[in-house]
Amino acid sequence: MVKVGILGATGYAGAELTRLLTGHSAVQIKFLDSRSYNGKKYSSVYPNLYNEIDMHCNTADLNNLSWIDEIDILFCALPHGLSQKAVKIASSEGKRVIDLSADFRISNKGVYEQWYGVKHEAEEELKKSVYGLCEVHREDIKMGQIIANPGCYPTSILLPLYPLLKEDATSLQNIIIDSKSGVSGAGRNPSDSILFSQCNENVKAYSIASHRHIPEIEEQLSLMVEKEVIIQFTPHLIPMTRGILSTIYLENSKDLKSKDIEEIFNINYKNERFIRLLTEGDLPQTKAVTGTNYCDIAVKIDDRTGRIIIISAIDNLIKGAAGQAVQNMNIILGFDEGMGLNQMSQWP
Amino acid sequence: MVKVGILGATGYAGAELTRLLTGHSAVQIKFLDSRSYNGKKYSSVYPNLYNEIDMHCNTADLNNLSWIDEIDILFCALPHGLSQKAVKIASSEGKRVIDLSADFRISNKGVYEQWYGVKHEAEEELKKSVYGLCEVHREDIKMGQIIANPGCYPTSILLPLYPLLKEDATSLQNIIIDSKSGVSGAGRNPSDSILFSQCNENVKAYSIASHRHIPEIEEQLSLMVEKEVIIQFTPHLIPMTRGILSTIYLENSKDLKSKDIEEIFNINYKNERFIRLLTEGDLPQTKAVTGTNYCDIAVKIDDRTGRIIIISAIDNLIKGAAGQAVQNMNIILGFDEGMGLNQMSQWP
Amino acid sequence: MVKVGILGATGYAGAELTRLLTGHSAVQIKFLDSRSYNGKKYSSVYPNLYNEIDMHCNTADLNNLSWIDEIDILFCALPHGLSQKAVKIASSEGKRVIDLSADFRISNKGVYEQWYGVKHEAEEELKKSVYGLCEVHREDIKMGQIIANPGCYPTSILLPLYPLLKEDATSLQNIIIDSKSGVSGAGRNPSDSILFSQCNENVKAYSIASHRHIPEIEEQLSLMVEKEVIIQFTPHLIPMTRGILSTIYLENSKDLKSKDIEEIFNINYKNERFIRLLTEGDLPQTKAVTGTNYCDIAVKIDDRTGRIIIISAIDNLIKGAAGQAVQNMNIILGFDEGMGLNQMSQWP
Amino acid sequence: MVKVGILGATGYAGAELTRLLTGHSAVQIKFLDSRSYNGKKYSSVYPNLYNEIDMHCNTADLNNLSWIDEIDILFCALPHGLSQKAVKIASSEGKRVIDLSADFRISNKGVYEQWYGVKHEAEEELKKSVYGLCEVHREDIKMGQIIANPGCYPTSILLPLYPLLKEDATSLQNIIIDSKSGVSGAGRNPSDSILFSQCNENVKAYSIASHRHIPEIEEQLSLMVEKEVIIQFTPHLIPMTRGILSTIYLENSKDLKSKDIEEIFNINYKNERFIRLLTEGDLPQTKAVTGTNYCDIAVKIDDRTGRIIIISAIDNLIKGAAGQAVQNMNIILGFDEGMGLNQMSQWP
Repeated sequence: MVKVGILGATGYAGAELTRLLTGHSAVQIKFLDSRSYNGKKYSSVYPNLYNEIDMHCNTADLNNLSWIDEIDILFCALPHGLSQKAVKIASSEGKRVIDLSADFRISNKGVYEQWYGVKHEAEEELKKSVYGLCEVHREDIKMGQIIANPGCYPTSILLPLYPLLKEDATSLQNIIIDSKSGVSGAGRNPSDSILFSQCNENVKAYSIASHRHIPEIEEQLSLMVEKEVIIQFTPHLIPMTRGILSTIYLENSKDLKSKDIEEIFNINYKNERFIRLLTEGDLPQTKAVTGTNYCDIAVKIDDRTGRIIIISAIDNLIKGAAGQAVQNMNIILGFDEGMGLNQMSQWP
Repeated sequence: MVKVGILGATGYAGAELTRLLTGHSAVQIKFLDSRSYNGKKYSSVYPNLYNEIDMHCNTADLNNLSWIDEIDILFCALPHGLSQKAVKIASSEGKRVIDLSADFRISNKGVYEQWYGVKHEAEEELKKSVYGLCEVHREDIKMGQIIANPGCYPTSILLPLYPLLKEDATSLQNIIIDSKSGVSGAGRNPSDSILFSQCNENVKAYSIASHRHIPEIEEQLSLMVEKEVIIQFTPHLIPMTRGILSTIYLENSKDLKSKDIEEIFNINYKNERFIRLLTEGDLPQTKAVTGTNYCDIAVKIDDRTGRIIIISAIDNLIKGAAGQAVQNMNIILGFDEGMGLNQMSQWP
Repeated sequence: MVKVGILGATGYAGAELTRLLTGHSAVQIKFLDSRSYNGKKYSSVYPNLYNEIDMHCNTADLNNLSWIDEIDILFCALPHGLSQKAVKIASSEGKRVIDLSADFRISNKGVYEQWYGVKHEAEEELKKSVYGLCEVHREDIKMGQIIANPGCYPTSILLPLYPLLKEDATSLQNIIIDSKSGVSGAGRNPSDSILFSQCNENVKAYSIASHRHIPEIEEQLSLMVEKEVIIQFTPHLIPMTRGILSTIYLENSKDLKSKDIEEIFNINYKNERFIRLLTEGDLPQTKAVTGTNYCDIAVKIDDRTGRIIIISAIDNLIKGAAGQAVQNMNIILGFDEGMGLNQMSQWP
Repeated sequence: MVKVGILGATGYAGAELTRLLTGHSAVQIKFLDSRSYNGKKYSSVYPNLYNEIDMHCNTADLNNLSWIDEIDILFCALPHGLSQKAVKIASSEGKRVIDLSADFRISNKGVYEQWYGVKHEAEEELKKSVYGLCEVHREDIKMGQIIANPGCYPTSILLPLYPLLKEDATSLQNIIIDSKSGVSGAGRNPSDSILFSQCNENVKAYSIASHRHIPEIEEQLSLMVEKEVIIQFTPHLIPMTRGILSTIYLENSKDLKSKDIEEIFNINYKNERFIRLLTEGDLPQTKAVTGTNYCDIAVKIDDRTGRIIIISAIDNLIKGAAGQAVQNMNIILGFDEGMGLNQMSQWP
């Protein structure tokens, strides 16, 4: 059994990690860290796990990582800024770390500091970190010591764009991405903007032209084509709990047909367990991926306008967070990538 | 008192018309037509109006419009294709008609027939009809006999675009519009795709590159600039009952600043009762306009990408349907435009 | 114009008061007090009121009530415990006060202190206060200086029970009340239990056998029959923003028929503007009263079990809070009770 | 591998059966019958199962059951009235049948016909059928040929009541049950009352004193105590997709304490995989059981009123339908009862 610990186990991403790892047949959870619920039974904080897990929350001492000896792999699901210290010590002890925060996703320290407004205190570790977008960076992940688990929006955007950019199938100009997210993406920390009564029967855009996932997306896209890529990205908050739907507008500069695009996807993703390409007019919907590690993708060519429109759907807390983290662990350990991730989505 | 009749009074747009006209101090409703609920008490179909209205539904005979004599103004809230006959006879009797269907919105009969897949049987009336976008075509509406009440998506898109196009403030290339609508936009006719269990906790795009509001929007934009305008339009269905939020991406070809855009809006809309321009970072949300005839608009300049991003919010059943129809009636009759439309939105 | 001030204007009940009073043709709002949003534009806290109201929030100094001179009537929408001081001073200045907190609803100071866990510091004022259930205590309200605006659950329960208890139509044994409330009843103060992601797709009971509205309901029922009445009351939180539905189980000890009950309601409520008795199998639903001051009621006799089942529906923030407060003000001032309260509910 | 077929596989209960059986390691699905979607790919009707299942819907000929030879066990998820013929033929061929309709739940043919308004055409089979409430009738189920899978409301009510009635812990007078259900309980057949726009932001009672689950519940309770039991049952429709919460009011005639009740539950349910008794003030919520076969139960004693209040929560489509059906199959076949039913609930 692989022994793991989770820092930040009572946030929503941490809770999904806890649930998925509890159901992973080769994993044993050694500790569940929480700052908000120290000493509480985990199943009183997450009553879905009553009788499934019999552990208590404990606030890990980040200055004295004696607990690090207990584990083989550390999952960090702390807010950005907080995980740097833990990642630093854990990696100095030779542990492999999967970090779900933004702290190790952007390779350029200055860019990170500019967009996140905090100093980066673990520059050496940043240099060693690998961006954990499983289907794209699998080989690097296998050897990586620090895996920066991708953000939820970036996952929903990079996975469908990767084959098209890699195969040089679209112009890099005028990439416009309009994303719609459920409220769980904002976490469990109480604030006015995520109250039921503020979100229900309401939709709004936020962080227009300024969302922190922009530099993460742009860096990854730029790496794919070895050129600087600039995108327009607008996130929206919609009245549902889970899921991200991204609508991506591209120029069809090579006048491709639907079947060309499908072929490009097939070449790149045919054997991918967690990518589903919908065809014949079927379109992604978040409900069809909720509870799973899938990324559903469909492509539509608009001949009137000369554009390619891509729709992708993921569960923001699974493929967009905890599920991808487990998939990264499976890659690191040489396990089957689907281990612990084979749940089917419920409908309705 | 102005005497009015409503064809299609038990669809959602018809029901809002009925409610708004019941509260209009200068209007008397003479009949409420319904094919689905003939003979039923109106308030058993719309229990919100119990004690507010004491009328029954009656199916109007479209071949024998003797009832036309009772009224001064006819509202048609029938599905597209069905209202042509009624509009024809009513207008031949000299009545003024406000039609909420798509049948008189597109001036080119062939374009209508191509996108809607039905023949247009009232070509003469089509030629006489006026597009009832109040803030833009007010003068024509005053004199119009047949008012084609705009579609919900077009209203949310044309109102914010009008000042910018009129003032030549943006390129006509690469206009991309990503809209999010509540489920009531699909009406009350039961079908699988609008069931609670299919829509709740779900978001999806639909009619990508093929929605029937595209030719309506493009015709109106083309009229504004006297050039052919092509747009990209993608509607999405989100889990709420009311509201449309449209996110519009434009090229900032003249390198305008926020205050330039605000000035353009002020010049054109300063005295408009139902346009609210949000500034200082406030962004439209559908909840803030629900139940009202407002169109809320905000503009964001993205200097990184050279784009103008516009967000607009309306209540699809009010400014996007029944409210605008009442506003059109007020214009026609020389009433204050706000009559019957002064309700404030509730929060939460 | 009647000049009013609102303490606690940025909670949800305070916001509805602000909206309703803004639309009241005989009222002028002089100040909007808020502890959370001092100095902010009111319409930035409640964006629905953009362009409708042009005031800022100001934190009223409760130790120096110089502002009291500006107003004729004070509305207190502060949390329980906080309003006692303000009510004390305002009433000592001869002002009439409508208090929406629980502080003056329970006549017995000891009972209040036991259930609310705070000391009551305004015993003299408590003695003078009138319980503002408009349809029941109208005559006392007319003369009252301090009106204790009823709780939301009590309003939904006392209004349907009053005629039956007054007419001695039911046993006082085994009164069981099962209520379902939207989340706005819990206010706008951020906490884990009212987050969108915690409430959506979820239903739960809370405060079983211990909810603070129990002594308020029991006192009022006991007054109606001049005997001690004990009830069973269970509130539930359901995933909607507004509305309370109460299901009330009574023993049909006199073997009444539906028409007997309807007659009892007619005798007592025939001329009540805001009570709607549904008959012929129609049942109350919260959507039909949302946005209105109505209390919808239906009665069902179960011959198999010998019980009377009553269903009532109100908008918790209007008839259950701000609307009833305005109705109380209208009574006090001799206005028509419907002034400012004539909005119809939207559907859907 | 056990070979199974599903009649009515495209209703919501049938879809959950299909999903759960697809994930059951000892089961092979041989056919998926559907009247509405004949010939369609199953995953186009249930897009959550894209790539998980590669079968098409076929309308089974109920007059020529040649397909019966392919299977070992037949699941019927047809509407009531329709399954009698299939159950008759299947059982005459010696197949074991698990029927999810109401047709074999009520042992008295006359009572069935009275409440359901249709004739019962399979009286012999009715006599042989076993009521499949797993935790209560396990021994009978093992030997049963026709298993009548319990209704959703009855499951949520009978499971918590069984230990108390069996141990004679409560009076049989004044049993009042107030249940709250998500909309999926009404199925996928489109109708006005289950449209998103009709249900969202709305709650209502329905079928007061007349719901068809009443005779089913009363028969089972009467069997438990060998006396006639009469209940009051009121179902409510609330704006969520899945889940039932039942609030049950009992007389605490023996003046039991919380720990007495807990002991009674422990005696009866200690080893039950799918019953969770919540203690220490924790209360059931539907979200904690969604996606699982659990029934969560909590008990509260109200000393003021002398009542026991029980709250139970289930997923109406799993423990209340398809999950219990799979559990019944596991019992019949001597499998571990948890096979195919070990999914944990997601939160949020």
